[in-house]
Amino acid sequence: MLLGCGDDWLLLDCGVTFPEPELTGVELVLPSMAVLGSFASKIRAIVLTHGHEDHIGAVPYALQVLQVPVYATRFTAGLVQHKLREHGLADQVTLHVVAPKTRVRIGPFDIGFLRVTHSIPDCVSLAIRTPLGNVLFTGDFKIEAGLRDGEVFDEAGFRAFGDEGVDLMMADSTNAEVPGWSGSEAAVGKHLAEVFSGIRGRILVGLFASNIYRLHSIIDAARVNGRYCVLLGKSLERYTTAANAYTSMPFDSEDIIGVKDLHRYDDDEVVIICTGSQAEPRAALSRVANGTHPEVAVKQGDTVVLSARQIPGNERRIHAMLNDFARGGAHVIYTRTDREIHASGHAYQEELRTLLTWVRPRRFIPVHGEYTFLQRHAELAQECGVERTLIIENGQTVTLGTDGMRVSDVRTLSPWYADGLVYGDAESLQLVARQQLGWHGAVAVQLDLDRSDGVVTGRARALPWGVQHEQGELAKEIETTLQRWSSGLNAKMPLSAVEGQIQSVVRKVVKRYSQRKPVVLSFVRWSDDVE
Amino acid sequence: MLLGCGDDWLLLDCGVTFPEPELTGVELVLPSMAVLGSFASKIRAIVLTHGHEDHIGAVPYALQVLQVPVYATRFTAGLVQHKLREHGLADQVTLHVVAPKTRVRIGPFDIGFLRVTHSIPDCVSLAIRTPLGNVLFTGDFKIEAGLRDGEVFDEAGFRAFGDEGVDLMMADSTNAEVPGWSGSEAAVGKHLAEVFSGIRGRILVGLFASNIYRLHSIIDAARVNGRYCVLLGKSLERYTTAANAYTSMPFDSEDIIGVKDLHRYDDDEVVIICTGSQAEPRAALSRVANGTHPEVAVKQGDTVVLSARQIPGNERRIHAMLNDFARGGAHVIYTRTDREIHASGHAYQEELRTLLTWVRPRRFIPVHGEYTFLQRHAELAQECGVERTLIIENGQTVTLGTDGMRVSDVRTLSPWYADGLVYGDAESLQLVARQQLGWHGAVAVQLDLDRSDGVVTGRARALPWGVQHEQGELAKEIETTLQRWSSGLNAKMPLSAVEGQIQSVVRKVVKRYSQRKPVVLSFVRWSDDVE
Repeated sequence: MLLGCGDDWLLLDCGVTFPEPELTGVELVLPSMAVLGSFASKIRAIVLTHGHEDHIGAVPYALQVLQVPVYATRFTAGLVQHKLREHGLADQVTLHVVAPKTRVRIGPFDIGFLRVTHSIPDCVSLAIRTPLGNVLFTGDFKIEAGLRDGEVFDEAGFRAFGDEGVDLMMADSTNAEVPGWSGSEAAVGKHLAEVFSGIRGRILVGLFASNIYRLHSIIDAARVNGRYCVLLGKSLERYTTAANAYTSMPFDSEDIIGVKDLHRYDDDEVVIICTGSQAEPRAALSRVANGTHPEVAVKQGDTVVLSARQIPGNERRIHAMLNDFARGGAHVIYTRTDREIHASGHAYQEELRTLLTWVRPRRFIPVHGEYTFLQRHAELAQECGVERTLIIENGQTVTLGTDGMRVSDVRTLSPWYADGLVYGDAESLQLVARQQLGWHGAVAVQLDLDRSDGVVTGRARALPWGVQHEQGELAKEIETTLQRWSSGLNAKMPLSAVEGQIQSVVRKVVKRYSQRKPVVLSFVRWSDDVE
Repeated sequence: MLLGCGDDWLLLDCGVTFPEPELTGVELVLPSMAVLGSFASKIRAIVLTHGHEDHIGAVPYALQVLQVPVYATRFTAGLVQHKLREHGLADQVTLHVVAPKTRVRIGPFDIGFLRVTHSIPDCVSLAIRTPLGNVLFTGDFKIEAGLRDGEVFDEAGFRAFGDEGVDLMMADSTNAEVPGWSGSEAAVGKHLAEVFSGIRGRILVGLFASNIYRLHSIIDAARVNGRYCVLLGKSLERYTTAANAYTSMPFDSEDIIGVKDLHRYDDDEVVIICTGSQAEPRAALSRVANGTHPEVAVKQGDTVVLSARQIPGNERRIHAMLNDFARGGAHVIYTRTDREIHASGHAYQEELRTLLTWVRPRRFIPVHGEYTFLQRHAELAQECGVERTLIIENGQTVTLGTDGMRVSDVRTLSPWYADGLVYGDAESLQLVARQQLGWHGAVAVQLDLDRSDGVVTGRARALPWGVQHEQGELAKEIETTLQRWSSGLNAKMPLSAVEGQIQSVVRKVVKRYSQRKPVVLSFVRWSDDVE
């Protein structure tokens, strides 16, 4: 999200998403670095609300386009610092740690950081005062009290900003379609302890490693049931290190045992906590399930508790993992069989209404989520008395007038993609070309043409790959057809035209056997061009 | 499912599933025709429980491997007949229409057809008596009374079969993890009428076209609200034709108007019923949503009611369609925002328990569904007093002994795939080769080698496609590297060995720029081999 005042702009959060299966050969989906680059001279800073990947994951990529400082709270800054080191950028970037309730001045922007609660520590909303008006950008939030680190949603701060007059509020819409309240971590923790108390044998738990509150709830539930915890997976290591360093709720080493010591304990004495709640193939949980983890394997009598939501698109993969656990003899508990083992980190309708009534903005733009969620959130705002709401999508620029607001510009934002440290747009990563190969296969063709007697004769070879038909047979048929076809060729035809015709000849042959339209890669030459 | 008694076998249902996105270039996933073929001389008949695609979709393919008659109830047989005509098999296959409560003798099998209720008309369970024992195969079911066609779940028939003694029961596990009862179509119909009564403007409804009960509920809800219905989509045409011909609940032409007449009615007077509840790209509903339907487009003030479940794996695509509707100005109602607009066609836990207590089988094998569902269903059976339960998976053969049962054989079942009328296994459809192209791209190489002076020199050309790098530049670098590499070649090396080395040379060049490992298709020749 870019926010501008005159010629000065801020980049508010900068995240990644994970590719759908169609996006073969990419690991991350990034914002358009081309569009970001077009704002490079005007952007003063990157300001972050919290440390989830969909809010900070693209920061290292953006910092290759922008030379600007980054502002974040302590825990978020710790996570960003880790990323900058991975990308070799740690020395080149100024990373400012800001405290909630303080304010930072950047160009015309006076930015206040208001504490909110969410499923990762140290989250803030941005209360941005400018000469042209006040803007609230909530980031992800729910409204929750009683969290372990003592942090509470800053009701007074939001009310006060509301009293000053908020010209535009942009708020998290993830659960705008869900009635009621999202529930508390305290209730989840209490329930997990009850669930654990009924279990004999080992307990394995899957969660989002960044959910430090949940991790504490699980370890507490283990402790009251006389169990020690094993932490399995690299990202658990990274996030617990960050929690110990940057939050007021470090982990107690007495609760945790090393995986190497697991054999010293009875099955009833352990909880094995794993990363990979979304069944990511290389994460601990799915490797334990399918028997490829080097140190832990599922066994008869285990109980698996998946204490996380299923992100849409991951359902099949997650259930395949749960099936693996069940096949291995484990009993599986997940949100479908027990809703209380998880609570969402995103505000439900009553929380959204509550915040709207505290802030009472003049204008409202719902953000984060499917279009239908944005639509519902805009309706909620109207029900709360906000007269001016607008639903926008990626690429649209909104200009605030004295009274209203309007979409003043629309750009096509083509996402960028990263595969390891390689990144670029769909064109430079050859995404469409690769998808075409994946759907239709390829045929490489070599054709030598001879026009020595004024009559064209041809010798062809073909190598089909991934085309729905027995390949040797298909190759021969393509070769014969091309040879026959070439004997009718105009001896003066340029090679480029010949290549174009070869593709349609090859596809015509393939069409007899399948619906594939293969990519044709052809080497053609006239014999008298050979040295 | 194959059921054998001595050397005589029955094929019970024969369905398809739809490919996950990774399965590029296929339309349907079929059972292994190779394994089916290995039973060809022993299989006496195909016996069907109901007309859903996952139970009859592969029948035309199986009938190219098996020369056997098909047994089905009237509505199911009508749908199968349509498929046989499409595949040009209508004249070659004997299709027997059987009535519920009757029995059919096939070899050693005495097959009774017990009426069950489900989300498509004319469903039966198979009560199979053999000299070696009695088997119940439920097919898909829920327990429901009050259906429009007057059909009721045959409690007495099941109880009587239970009294005879059921040695093995196999039952639908789809909702074995869901507590309670699945609810009734009557309640859905009543709720839809209430929902419609609150709507101004046009109503668009998406459903499974095969759900004739639901279609009637929607048309009734329209009628009581003074609305006429338009039916949009080919499969609605096919299923309503079948319902008119083969069921006791034909549609009343007075309720239905043609899409060409839509302009004669006010928006408050119409309901547009569409196929494509799973957002299939070519179905009516998604085309109306994204503006590619030739006759109907979404407009401001429309209300869309999606009266269907979201099949796992389709969630993202379905929500993208709902977003399109919302963007077009429609209000969207779906199971997340209103659970009562749909009821499942599969029994929940209390219905499963009920059937188990009616049948009281000696042995139980849960079927249909994820492994965790099967596990839960086996537990339910145990809770109902069934002592012997077994969870099996595709490819396993179970042998019943005097008392128990055991897995006596395990085969690897490799699914077959269909793309239009082309079908075969993964190898013959070149699935893996195509996936490899989709993930890694391809490089075609032409290399001419000259050994005339006892020293090898090479001239190379390369055509990369879909490899994460600027293609012209990459081609040049591959060509230069191959030329340099070939000058060190042993002049006597056979071509096949040269080709193997070319692949690793090409991949090494690519590795400098990306993590792709392209397929290399190479044409190599020694100059003195050229004619």
